[in-house]
Amino acid sequence: MSNLPAVLDHVDGDLEPAIQRLFELLRIKSISTDPAFAKDCRAAADWLVADLNTLGFTAASRDTPGHPMVVGHSSGSGKHLLFYGHYDVQPVDPLDLWTHPPFEPAIEDTAHGKVIRARGASDDKGQLMTFLEACRAWKTVTGTLPANISIFFEGEEESGSPSLVPFLKANAAELKADLALVCDTGMWNADTPAIPTMLRGLAAIEFTINGPNIDLHSGIYGGPAINPIRVVANILGRLHDKNGRVTLAGFYNGVKDLTPKMKAQWQTLNFDADEFLGSVGLSVPAGEAGYSALEQIWSRPTAEVNGIWGGYTGTGFKGVLPAKASAKVSFRLVGDQVPSAILQSFKDFITANLPADCTVTYIEKNGARATSLPYDAPEFALTREALSQEWANPAIFTGGGGSIPVVGHFLDILGMNSIMVGFAQHDDAIHSPNEKYNLSSFHKGIRSWVRILDALRD
Amino acid sequence: MSNLPAVLDHVDGDLEPAIQRLFELLRIKSISTDPAFAKDCRAAADWLVADLNTLGFTAASRDTPGHPMVVGHSSGSGKHLLFYGHYDVQPVDPLDLWTHPPFEPAIEDTAHGKVIRARGASDDKGQLMTFLEACRAWKTVTGTLPANISIFFEGEEESGSPSLVPFLKANAAELKADLALVCDTGMWNADTPAIPTMLRGLAAIEFTINGPNIDLHSGIYGGPAINPIRVVANILGRLHDKNGRVTLAGFYNGVKDLTPKMKAQWQTLNFDADEFLGSVGLSVPAGEAGYSALEQIWSRPTAEVNGIWGGYTGTGFKGVLPAKASAKVSFRLVGDQVPSAILQSFKDFITANLPADCTVTYIEKNGARATSLPYDAPEFALTREALSQEWANPAIFTGGGGSIPVVGHFLDILGMNSIMVGFAQHDDAIHSPNEKYNLSSFHKGIRSWVRILDALRD
Repeated sequence: MSNLPAVLDHVDGDLEPAIQRLFELLRIKSISTDPAFAKDCRAAADWLVADLNTLGFTAASRDTPGHPMVVGHSSGSGKHLLFYGHYDVQPVDPLDLWTHPPFEPAIEDTAHGKVIRARGASDDKGQLMTFLEACRAWKTVTGTLPANISIFFEGEEESGSPSLVPFLKANAAELKADLALVCDTGMWNADTPAIPTMLRGLAAIEFTINGPNIDLHSGIYGGPAINPIRVVANILGRLHDKNGRVTLAGFYNGVKDLTPKMKAQWQTLNFDADEFLGSVGLSVPAGEAGYSALEQIWSRPTAEVNGIWGGYTGTGFKGVLPAKASAKVSFRLVGDQVPSAILQSFKDFITANLPADCTVTYIEKNGARATSLPYDAPEFALTREALSQEWANPAIFTGGGGSIPVVGHFLDILGMNSIMVGFAQHDDAIHSPNEKYNLSSFHKGIRSWVRILDALRD
Repeated sequence: MSNLPAVLDHVDGDLEPAIQRLFELLRIKSISTDPAFAKDCRAAADWLVADLNTLGFTAASRDTPGHPMVVGHSSGSGKHLLFYGHYDVQPVDPLDLWTHPPFEPAIEDTAHGKVIRARGASDDKGQLMTFLEACRAWKTVTGTLPANISIFFEGEEESGSPSLVPFLKANAAELKADLALVCDTGMWNADTPAIPTMLRGLAAIEFTINGPNIDLHSGIYGGPAINPIRVVANILGRLHDKNGRVTLAGFYNGVKDLTPKMKAQWQTLNFDADEFLGSVGLSVPAGEAGYSALEQIWSRPTAEVNGIWGGYTGTGFKGVLPAKASAKVSFRLVGDQVPSAILQSFKDFITANLPADCTVTYIEKNGARATSLPYDAPEFALTREALSQEWANPAIFTGGGGSIPVVGHFLDILGMNSIMVGFAQHDDAIHSPNEKYNLSSFHKGIRSWVRILDALRD
């Protein structure tokens, strides 16, 4: 006889104390990017260690050159699951836009129901606590955790995760599990849970074209002097053909067509491209011809200019031919595209289009390949089924336009797949003033993990 | 019997007092762009008025909304000549780079001979005083000025000349003469005087491409969202064809081929393009194929990007798709090119290449047509001959890559041609610390004007 109904009942009856526990964590100002809050980050880690130790985990705060990691292991049996979340939060400025002090959490009534208002309520303290509360309910009702669960909390997710890769490499044997569960994503809409299975990768590079050795007067040198801005514009203006395809040699190597099955599933989402684009003042998908807006975001690679600068940019006019001009370019990657190969092709393109008397310098960012998860594996089907029982609509497999680095690192360093399940809503204002987490996300999120753990335990 | 030899002798004998008079003017801190020096500008105007009144001119300082103009008329007979110069100077910062206080003029010995060291020594106080000293010598020796001479000094040349056009329009009848003489240019080299006969015009415009109504995240919107930087790059990257010609419709309307005679004369200049480009780190003329570097600067029009900006331009990377991107573009014009028509063609080009969901806004600068002076007229030949008698090498007719606005205004508003004669050298460091004027420029400049006035008097 399953314990599931009893555990779910316990979650419902224990909601108010669960909220109070979350509030304790939300009151800790664990802003990771600001060194002034280093003690608060450590306090958040310590709070989590203490809570984990009450749940049957053997947990400890683990020092890094930055903020500590929290690692806990249980003695449960069955499948070994590693749960990931992060306890650090974004800065709160501009503070004057908050209607409520960001570190004084409160329940507020809104037109869309009750919400938990605080920095970190959604990203990611509220989310990670859904999992701990699910563990607590299982432990309370059955006396034990339902699987062999390990916990891994990071405190630097909002500040670039400088310690993550070294820590994973140094503790690979300890952290590798059968499957990772990652709670840092959102739902498709308020009634429809989502499991991302494809995340685009990223390659980024800054380049500077150097021409004359000083800025020149366009009256004196205009004509015979090469203008680096013109060179940059000429390069960037030819990165795409008229159908929106990237023109770099070999760019589409490793790009795979969407499977008919996934394409059909995405079509059932009834994604409202008009609303999606209209909300930011656009109306026409500007990417590759022949692909829907959703396909362009989730399944197609891009080349984008994220910044450009050169010459005189103040008010008025100045007849200057600048000595140099620069741009930052990034590529969203899919399938088996290789970041280093993409950047090399881009550099080759620049070299081939570099006029006489010009040189080029680069600053490269570490790239990340696209992540493609084995959504045909049984764990994905089980998780999807468990979520579908909790929410009004069945759970769906989605893509993601941006990367979630930890998922890529788990795959690359630990050889471990991740299932991403999260309960954030589009209007949660993460990273912005007045961040909130729906009370229903918290409550039904806990219930969702109770169900998922039940489904995955064997 | 000509008085010329006696007048030239007088110049030689009067050089030391002439230097002292120039020093008086150089000590006045007439920095026009800084309101703190408004009194100094007025003092410089008053000093010139007083000096002019000793030379047989009826002169006065004339108020404007900015700094005063100085206008003087003589009662001489013969051809009516209007002499133009400016008494204001550039700021002196960075002051710590001056080897000598900028407003304490001194004669210094250098490897290239004696120089007058002071702010304004070359631009333009030393130059305008060459003309006044020539007048003084004529007046002293013959009792009268050699022609019907008017004087027009401006005090805002280094700060955009805001009062110049209104003043010329309001006083057109008074200021119109048979010919203007403008002393604000330089020599071809230390032994070769130059008379510019062609000056390029200018049209300039700033444009902003607006796409989405807010900056977007390239992970979420990368693909379907139009990127304004890409639009700007695409437009600017197509402004030139592979031969360096501007691709705008009708751009070359009114552009004339150089006459064989002028082309032949320019070839005799032995312009050292290697040195000209090499001094700024370049080696290959990058302008229109088929034209020499000198022809590209003096006789061919250009389209140049003077500034570009958009997106994230700080350190590191940010996955932003910006809401807008901008550039400043200017066109150097020749022959009969019309600034407004050039800008309209550019705007039409942008309109034709504007993607869906994008809008464009413009900021236009008042343009100026190219100036082409009638160098076949007798006055040009006479001036050239007079200069050739003073200097080691014959005077030459040159072009100019930039505009000298007052010459265009004299032509447009007063219907009056200008002969530009000046004695500045390339190493005078005008607008920079340690400005100087060769003592030989000052001395032989005075003698040059004595000769020119003698040649033009009838």
